[in-house]
Amino acid sequence: MSVLDSPPIVDGPVPTLLEDWVDEINGLRRIGREFYSKGWSVGTSSNYSVVVQRNPLRLLVTASGKDKGCLACGDFVLVDEHGEPTEAGQPKSSAETLLHIAAAQDANIGAVLHTHSVWATLLSDVFLGEGGMELTGYEMLKGLQGVSTHAHREWIPIFRNTQQIPTLAADVAVCQASDRPIAHAYLIHQHGLYTWGRDLAEARRHIEILEFLFECKARRMAFPH
Amino acid sequence: MSVLDSPPIVDGPVPTLLEDWVDEINGLRRIGREFYSKGWSVGTSSNYSVVVQRNPLRLLVTASGKDKGCLACGDFVLVDEHGEPTEAGQPKSSAETLLHIAAAQDANIGAVLHTHSVWATLLSDVFLGEGGMELTGYEMLKGLQGVSTHAHREWIPIFRNTQQIPTLAADVAVCQASDRPIAHAYLIHQHGLYTWGRDLAEARRHIEILEFLFECKARRMAFPH
Amino acid sequence: MSVLDSPPIVDGPVPTLLEDWVDEINGLRRIGREFYSKGWSVGTSSNYSVVVQRNPLRLLVTASGKDKGCLACGDFVLVDEHGEPTEAGQPKSSAETLLHIAAAQDANIGAVLHTHSVWATLLSDVFLGEGGMELTGYEMLKGLQGVSTHAHREWIPIFRNTQQIPTLAADVAVCQASDRPIAHAYLIHQHGLYTWGRDLAEARRHIEILEFLFECKARRMAFPH
Amino acid sequence: MSVLDSPPIVDGPVPTLLEDWVDEINGLRRIGREFYSKGWSVGTSSNYSVVVQRNPLRLLVTASGKDKGCLACGDFVLVDEHGEPTEAGQPKSSAETLLHIAAAQDANIGAVLHTHSVWATLLSDVFLGEGGMELTGYEMLKGLQGVSTHAHREWIPIFRNTQQIPTLAADVAVCQASDRPIAHAYLIHQHGLYTWGRDLAEARRHIEILEFLFECKARRMAFPH
Repeated sequence: MSVLDSPPIVDGPVPTLLEDWVDEINGLRRIGREFYSKGWSVGTSSNYSVVVQRNPLRLLVTASGKDKGCLACGDFVLVDEHGEPTEAGQPKSSAETLLHIAAAQDANIGAVLHTHSVWATLLSDVFLGEGGMELTGYEMLKGLQGVSTHAHREWIPIFRNTQQIPTLAADVAVCQASDRPIAHAYLIHQHGLYTWGRDLAEARRHIEILEFLFECKARRMAFPH
Repeated sequence: MSVLDSPPIVDGPVPTLLEDWVDEINGLRRIGREFYSKGWSVGTSSNYSVVVQRNPLRLLVTASGKDKGCLACGDFVLVDEHGEPTEAGQPKSSAETLLHIAAAQDANIGAVLHTHSVWATLLSDVFLGEGGMELTGYEMLKGLQGVSTHAHREWIPIFRNTQQIPTLAADVAVCQASDRPIAHAYLIHQHGLYTWGRDLAEARRHIEILEFLFECKARRMAFPH
Repeated sequence: MSVLDSPPIVDGPVPTLLEDWVDEINGLRRIGREFYSKGWSVGTSSNYSVVVQRNPLRLLVTASGKDKGCLACGDFVLVDEHGEPTEAGQPKSSAETLLHIAAAQDANIGAVLHTHSVWATLLSDVFLGEGGMELTGYEMLKGLQGVSTHAHREWIPIFRNTQQIPTLAADVAVCQASDRPIAHAYLIHQHGLYTWGRDLAEARRHIEILEFLFECKARRMAFPH
Repeated sequence: MSVLDSPPIVDGPVPTLLEDWVDEINGLRRIGREFYSKGWSVGTSSNYSVVVQRNPLRLLVTASGKDKGCLACGDFVLVDEHGEPTEAGQPKSSAETLLHIAAAQDANIGAVLHTHSVWATLLSDVFLGEGGMELTGYEMLKGLQGVSTHAHREWIPIFRNTQQIPTLAADVAVCQASDRPIAHAYLIHQHGLYTWGRDLAEARRHIEILEFLFECKARRMAFPH
């Protein structure tokens, strides 16, 4: 690794509290480096989490305000089922931790990823008035968990942005209980994408697939034919 | 290689059955890493194959559902002339293996590559109604095997997508026997590109050239002048 | 590091005059390598500086005409509060050094970054007639120092380009004293972006955020809906 | 270097005939790797040369049909003032070698670079009818040798493509003798860019600057305002 690597990677020590989850920590660091380089997590945006325990729920989540391209081993927080740190002395977790907790209520969810991309920002604005957008007809949809045909109709709800995260969490809960519930992901207006998976690999695959489809859909809509 | 390389590369052992084709395996792994990083094989999409024997035909093909950015040595299947694994105990090959087998019937074909890009997805939709699209006038066409002038007219057929791969294989066969047969490649609607070559290097070159031309054609069509 | 690394990195000796600021030098070299690879500092464009002393002001600034992708340790100049080299025998600093000095008058500013991107060039032309552009509604705005909500209205003034840097510096000063002063950044017409931060990390984050928002805004404006 | 590096780099031996120009060879290999990764030299397109002797003229030029992303030390040809190999047994040089020879007639030219990019292809078609295009108003123009202001008007002639390279060379010569001669570069229709410089670093900088400006101009023209 050269002194000129950018951003520089600091391995540093793993905090004692997190010692059991070195693999999860390195998995999230890797995701951060990758998503940063793809432009989906720049400017300290985004947050990522992994479920490390159920009953009671424990999440390992990225600390607030960190450069996702060079997460250090200490840039993580262990939070409880209310999104509160399990112990004092940890770095601050994002206010959006509540949205991770909400998604992780589902016992099939092992990881939650939130990214900010240009295409997601664009489409979240174009379709805000319709409350969401549909993705259909793409072979790539088959990469979403449980989808077996390109004819699948994937509905991605879009929520209005607010700095009141409990309000946002409530909006998500209402949608989830509606007749058009969230399937694999949702968007927040001019903010970004939330998706998840049974494990980190599946959540990462969902990000890749949705970002690909967002670019396909946006470019197709802008095409003059 | 850093712990933060993304996706991580696992070299692992080469399965005994595949020991004679380590170079081919590493060639396909390299292609996967490259095409993944270019955005042509994300989300576990795409599949690649190399002909390792003729009479009877044997193909080394990527296993189904693998991350193409980090193919391990064991993520390959040896299939026979019917697309069936030559031995039990191998990972599952893609349903689309039949399309590889179809292309490899031609004794001049040594490798078949299938990718999913944004531009291919876009153009496959724009030109679906015309059954294909023509590429002509580009110097870059000369990189296609046997083409010696930019004035060459390359016809790229586009097939409707279906989850019934035998149906798709039959459509391809009908086209091949028509008065406008497939030259170097075809598209499947909102699915991706199939191309091939005498060897892996030529097939890879064809992907590069066609992807370049797809972007040229799409941007030109969208240009307001 | 391979002989084929491009551009090649030459570490070389740190000039005696600059020996106290090796970390700052390496930080700026890293920024250069990164911004070059993102296309924001190609063709020897851009210049970067760090405040290394106050009272009197001393800036470490990139030398004129260097390839920002491979800055050597000697490609820097130490300048005084007038933008003049503190000692003879140093490489020439950019004429735009005056704009760095102007920004660094603010005691809260520790680093100034100037980049040339395609999106900044485009928007600086589209909004030239309005004297600037507003960015609002984006969650990403919260990455700008002191901004706590996506509802923030960020005004980015745009100045006409000129080869008379004192004229440009005067225009900036007039704007700064106006009822719509510069907040975090400004653009120069078909030239590029100036932004800054309390330290190099913050200035780099501002570049990332503003470049992301420029692309969002330009793509949204070009979208047909 | 990993087995998965793509494309793989083969250093190999430098041919005896070329032993005096190892630095030039490695410079061109580096350029190839870089331009390939930027998408300007894919599919074995492009060719590059360096003047290694004057009176009589000797050029080191890339061999025909090589992957520019992984040029080996032997993928070069030494040609004379007529574009013919100085010795038998060398790989074939491109038919376009004549265009390199034509540019290198100017005693101030030490390197010639020819690339194929998407933006160059697009603009060469949009402006073909006008015989060329003008670039003006961009600060980045100052990176072209001898240009000192953004107000500079750079005229880039565009020639019709043909497989008859002597015809093309004659067209270039006629233009050069006209009242609007070639300044730093020209385009060939749907083929690519030729530019040059006093040395390889300057020629590379010209490519970077022109590609940046092509993207700026094309995106601005397509912008709806």
